[in-house]
Amino acid sequence: MSNKGITARRENYSQWYLDIIERAQLAENSSVRGCMVIKPYGFAIWENIQRELDRRIKESGAQNAYFPLFIPKSFFTKEASHVKGFAKECAVVTHYRLKESEDGKSIIVDPDAKLEEELVVRPTSETIMYDTFSRWVSSWRDLPLKINQWANVVRWEKRTRPFLRTSEFLWQEGHTVHTSKEESQKEVLRALDMYVSFAKEALALDVYSGRKSESEKFAGAVNTYGVEALMQDGKALQFGTSHDLGQNFAKAFGIYFTDKDGESKLPWQTSWGVSTRMMGAVIMSHSDDLGLILPPRIAPIKIAIIPIYTDENREEILNYARSVYEEISNHIDDVEFDDRDFVSPGFKFNEWEKKGVPIRIEIGGRDMQESQVVVVRRDTNEKNSVSKEEIGSRVLALLDEIQVNLLNRSSEILKNGTHEVSSYDEFKSLLSSKKGFIKASWCGSVECEDGIKHETKATTRCFSHNEKGKCIYCDKPATEKWVFAIPY
Amino acid sequence: MSNKGITARRENYSQWYLDIIERAQLAENSSVRGCMVIKPYGFAIWENIQRELDRRIKESGAQNAYFPLFIPKSFFTKEASHVKGFAKECAVVTHYRLKESEDGKSIIVDPDAKLEEELVVRPTSETIMYDTFSRWVSSWRDLPLKINQWANVVRWEKRTRPFLRTSEFLWQEGHTVHTSKEESQKEVLRALDMYVSFAKEALALDVYSGRKSESEKFAGAVNTYGVEALMQDGKALQFGTSHDLGQNFAKAFGIYFTDKDGESKLPWQTSWGVSTRMMGAVIMSHSDDLGLILPPRIAPIKIAIIPIYTDENREEILNYARSVYEEISNHIDDVEFDDRDFVSPGFKFNEWEKKGVPIRIEIGGRDMQESQVVVVRRDTNEKNSVSKEEIGSRVLALLDEIQVNLLNRSSEILKNGTHEVSSYDEFKSLLSSKKGFIKASWCGSVECEDGIKHETKATTRCFSHNEKGKCIYCDKPATEKWVFAIPY
Repeated sequence: MSNKGITARRENYSQWYLDIIERAQLAENSSVRGCMVIKPYGFAIWENIQRELDRRIKESGAQNAYFPLFIPKSFFTKEASHVKGFAKECAVVTHYRLKESEDGKSIIVDPDAKLEEELVVRPTSETIMYDTFSRWVSSWRDLPLKINQWANVVRWEKRTRPFLRTSEFLWQEGHTVHTSKEESQKEVLRALDMYVSFAKEALALDVYSGRKSESEKFAGAVNTYGVEALMQDGKALQFGTSHDLGQNFAKAFGIYFTDKDGESKLPWQTSWGVSTRMMGAVIMSHSDDLGLILPPRIAPIKIAIIPIYTDENREEILNYARSVYEEISNHIDDVEFDDRDFVSPGFKFNEWEKKGVPIRIEIGGRDMQESQVVVVRRDTNEKNSVSKEEIGSRVLALLDEIQVNLLNRSSEILKNGTHEVSSYDEFKSLLSSKKGFIKASWCGSVECEDGIKHETKATTRCFSHNEKGKCIYCDKPATEKWVFAIPY
Repeated sequence: MSNKGITARRENYSQWYLDIIERAQLAENSSVRGCMVIKPYGFAIWENIQRELDRRIKESGAQNAYFPLFIPKSFFTKEASHVKGFAKECAVVTHYRLKESEDGKSIIVDPDAKLEEELVVRPTSETIMYDTFSRWVSSWRDLPLKINQWANVVRWEKRTRPFLRTSEFLWQEGHTVHTSKEESQKEVLRALDMYVSFAKEALALDVYSGRKSESEKFAGAVNTYGVEALMQDGKALQFGTSHDLGQNFAKAFGIYFTDKDGESKLPWQTSWGVSTRMMGAVIMSHSDDLGLILPPRIAPIKIAIIPIYTDENREEILNYARSVYEEISNHIDDVEFDDRDFVSPGFKFNEWEKKGVPIRIEIGGRDMQESQVVVVRRDTNEKNSVSKEEIGSRVLALLDEIQVNLLNRSSEILKNGTHEVSSYDEFKSLLSSKKGFIKASWCGSVECEDGIKHETKATTRCFSHNEKGKCIYCDKPATEKWVFAIPY
């Protein structure tokens, strides 16, 4: 462990991730197994992500709404494959009252308050929403129906890790209904594209995206498309999915519309979502051994200003630093003026560094004399003196530079971390050394997919492109190349 | 029932409320008993409320965070009076898995997946938050700690009514920790004031606010302060509370801080919240027999523009109306240009009226010729012609006028609906005629409060002012006047 309490990545990547989360004060474990507390600084990042994504979702024509947290157990059985995917890991409400025990010393579940039908805490909302949609949809004029929900969902998890896998997590789930197959398939890809551009533009993350294999798709979907990012340890992190639901759920929940020709028809549906897991992708992708690194667009604090003074020049420096703060605040929101008296400048440098604030500004006696400030970039640790007159426009440009640089780095990592192989030996040797994304021919059979997964832990992440070749596992002819990786 | 499907208020006030919610498409019942679906239009109002209140909460120095949905059962027993208030009506998670029944025909709760300790779906988050706060607070430098959470909560309710009382509802809960009693009491009143000004400025609702009686206070609090609005049927609706928690929870959860003098001390706490119940208050207060009336500040659509054309002048009118739309959009967001071809202008007037859109603009052939438009206010139904040149500035001013008018009306209703009485006979006679808020002397005893409640259904809503008199119920000397009303 370094002197800043952050384990080096090469020493222990998993511990490094946990250290970053602790030291940057993003989240912590709660007293409820598998559930985390998202701390104010972590939640402020989530709010920035939410605001920006919500804008894009609304631009697509979807409207926000809110559906019940609880789903009647029987709803899950309506779509045959959906129940298999989601019944396994859920929180079940069986009673609606507690009461004092007879000895008055504790409280117990009141056996008289048993629910007739158990309620499942939503792991996803297809069933409860589509039950309602069956009443909302009656004519082609009601379509397309595009609903989005920001909500908490629960999937009981055995092994949890903050942001990446928690029993309760926050997400958005979009659900759309269309008159035609073509239109719904367009929507599936639109949502996927929205996530890809959001990843690039807001999170500075380059990603792969594409169709998932049969075994990796959403329970109940015809097709699932996923967004995949590469972490620094060479493992893949899926952080968003878009599902082509076909008419499966429409059938199961009796959603029908009268078409222009007067006939009653089943509509076509999609659903798509991203969650607080994205926070994990951001943390793991950009950060270094000194702490968190945040893309400026989602950083709650974009610039931290730290005055460095002695007892003698304290007032002078504080005044000068404050005038710099005011100048910068004319151009940029979310600037922190750190005039805390009870901690040293070194402590402050360290704190803002750990928290991933994109730009740190140091202001000491010499800077004041020369009417300048020292500007430190978090992404490159580069230090430069900038005159006070130029500081506003300079940091404004610098925030953009940092955003671009982080995306470029991410593209570089993705490019360098992707390898195309033609044999299973190559495949295995890559996985045992640098890991990363591996493009390889696959015949499409579940047996080969399972065999590869069992032997290497790598799974199909998404379809890459059409190309004739031989399946790396069974040697039979294959027409498609797929992206494989060891996933989180 | 009127021809618009809305029951008249004087005919059946409760049904009128339900009709408004249905016809304005605000919410509907779900398949889960007691839980509602908040529809897009209703949710857009909630988002406006949220945005404006969130801004005020952050201005007060509180930071948003997120805590687990589930609370271990044992946490409730830590604060003695808290458990009594909240254990009665809660959703209890006892299992974490479902499985197929032996005959494969249904799914059942897996008896092997029983939780060691049951989890309660949060009815409020004091316990789970303060368990965490005990780790966050160690020095006076950590205080004040001010945390806010936007979340869903569940309180099992027997009789439910959309927005007013549902088993699951959305809310914000603020939780603060302070070094001194004085500071925490200031915070309790600050939060109360924030809710009062929010009610007036955003919701156009005049309200009473003040300390609640012992029997009406929050389970676990030293004192509770409430905000009370008067509905059109003369009943009171409490829509926000602020609690002085004293050191009760700090003791129960072991929150200690080292003060400047080096001593370890118990801090002082507050909590405060408002919920989707506010939506009910807004609907019930302003609306009329034609439908919903919304204060412009929280209206998702502020202006609806309706072109009225024949087959002959269709294109001309649409072009003219669109130029009006563009002119207005230069000044105002959230303007709807209703050019739907398949419904009549009359249908559109009716629809926007029912949905409470503050301003409707009608544009026909004569308006086009005279380069004007017809402007209709939803609050007064007043119609006026306005020239096209003036329309932008006129509607901008008009939105403010409507906001002010609604608040004035609300103040008028509150004033006219408040009566001061000196005898129990007067008190009862008022309650059996017009109801409303009644100020009366009360000795402070629970017996008198219970007697009054039992005999009249009226309860103490909040403290009014100090004044010597005789308790209206027991005739003994009283020093305080209290506001009574029949509550929702």
